[in-house]
Amino acid sequence: MQKALLSLVGAGPGDIELITIKAVKAIRTADVILYDALANPGLLNYARPTCIKQFVGKKAGCHATSQKEINTLIIEFAQSYARIVRLKGGDPFVFGRSQEEIDTATAAGMEVEVIPGISSALAVPAMQMIPLTCRGISDSFWVVSGTTASGEISKDLFLAAQSSATVVILMGMRRLKTIMDIFSLLGRAETPVAIIQNGTTAEEKIVIGTVKDVYLKANAANMSNPAIIVIGEVIHVRGITKLKQKLLAHTPLTAVFK
Amino acid sequence: MQKALLSLVGAGPGDIELITIKAVKAIRTADVILYDALANPGLLNYARPTCIKQFVGKKAGCHATSQKEINTLIIEFAQSYARIVRLKGGDPFVFGRSQEEIDTATAAGMEVEVIPGISSALAVPAMQMIPLTCRGISDSFWVVSGTTASGEISKDLFLAAQSSATVVILMGMRRLKTIMDIFSLLGRAETPVAIIQNGTTAEEKIVIGTVKDVYLKANAANMSNPAIIVIGEVIHVRGITKLKQKLLAHTPLTAVFK
Repeated sequence: MQKALLSLVGAGPGDIELITIKAVKAIRTADVILYDALANPGLLNYARPTCIKQFVGKKAGCHATSQKEINTLIIEFAQSYARIVRLKGGDPFVFGRSQEEIDTATAAGMEVEVIPGISSALAVPAMQMIPLTCRGISDSFWVVSGTTASGEISKDLFLAAQSSATVVILMGMRRLKTIMDIFSLLGRAETPVAIIQNGTTAEEKIVIGTVKDVYLKANAANMSNPAIIVIGEVIHVRGITKLKQKLLAHTPLTAVFK
Repeated sequence: MQKALLSLVGAGPGDIELITIKAVKAIRTADVILYDALANPGLLNYARPTCIKQFVGKKAGCHATSQKEINTLIIEFAQSYARIVRLKGGDPFVFGRSQEEIDTATAAGMEVEVIPGISSALAVPAMQMIPLTCRGISDSFWVVSGTTASGEISKDLFLAAQSSATVVILMGMRRLKTIMDIFSLLGRAETPVAIIQNGTTAEEKIVIGTVKDVYLKANAANMSNPAIIVIGEVIHVRGITKLKQKLLAHTPLTAVFK
């Protein structure tokens, strides 16, 4: 008997074209696809007509499929089907709880592969012209979850606030005030902050502020998850790019060479 | 006159299938492609036959195209061609020096877009089954360049070494000993380290050690750039996954359900 293969596939940040060729190939050959709420459902159109497409995410007001239930589904499907795709928003290894599914599948004797995806932590700022690293401004970037397994704020945030890193926080909207207070206490009140909701999709919304005022601005704009919080001087770079584009919007290209 | 468009396109980490649909579309419609050494040259096969393909990277023993020369090429091509693609290894905003090209193009009145790519910082560990984040082990990951604009070690490394973050270092092989010394001094001598050279390609090589011994192991294995250095307890997770796969390699799937 051929061993079943579990492919953990990154669906990207939302834009249906920000998925890799490798991921599309995995979807095309899947017998079963288990997909969550953050994966663009349009990607299921790549699947064969006979493919079983099972939603395992959380819908407003409905019971969310628990990790344990997902693990059970993987093993049950593997008894009858050879190619199981677990389609996850972003990248499977960036806060994707993939290891729990890998452990389950491996213990059941399945083969496992990981197909990286475009993480929203990187792509959402990029599509907004915010470079996570920029020579002379930021040598590094730090991606932190706003919600840890224990429910507490990650202690790493206190170190991040002392660094030159561009700090990217996922799932942080419910702790936004606390996070901004930490940065403020560590002398970062004036550092610019961008909050981008539904990044790379038609529903994209952005709010720009500073550590000291972005909480009020985000509230006024009704910002909520799924959103990315970016903290760092690189946000100024975006402002300059946008300003130049505006100023030069009506300047013909040749004028520059006079 | 239509304004020329500069598309900064992420070519992904090396594997020719780890590029996005959006990036392939940009390559397909390009009049000119300026590509660097880290972009997989096979991607140029997506281009039209009339497309001008210009190498602007560094080849062993040859003069590298300087950033200034690349900037000049962008502006010169924009006088005659409408769609210029700048194809960069990984993601354009992860140590890609893209801002210098955006500034140049914007100042010349060009339109600019950024198409995110799969960063080797994330994908190379993922393809080696190393999760950058893992519940209960690591709530965050920190991506740092081994070489800053000034040539010095980034001070962020001292903070990174005190955090629970998985630390990913790009372009760090020449400073490997110094970086490991910093982690050692901060009490991290026993933390596992993985070094992956030419990740996601057929030439992939991996060395696993700890902060205190990986320098010698990497030297013995002749490891060099392009390589990714990953520091953190998540590397143990990979070991466990690999071990389980080996133990269960000959266990039929049904045996698990007995």
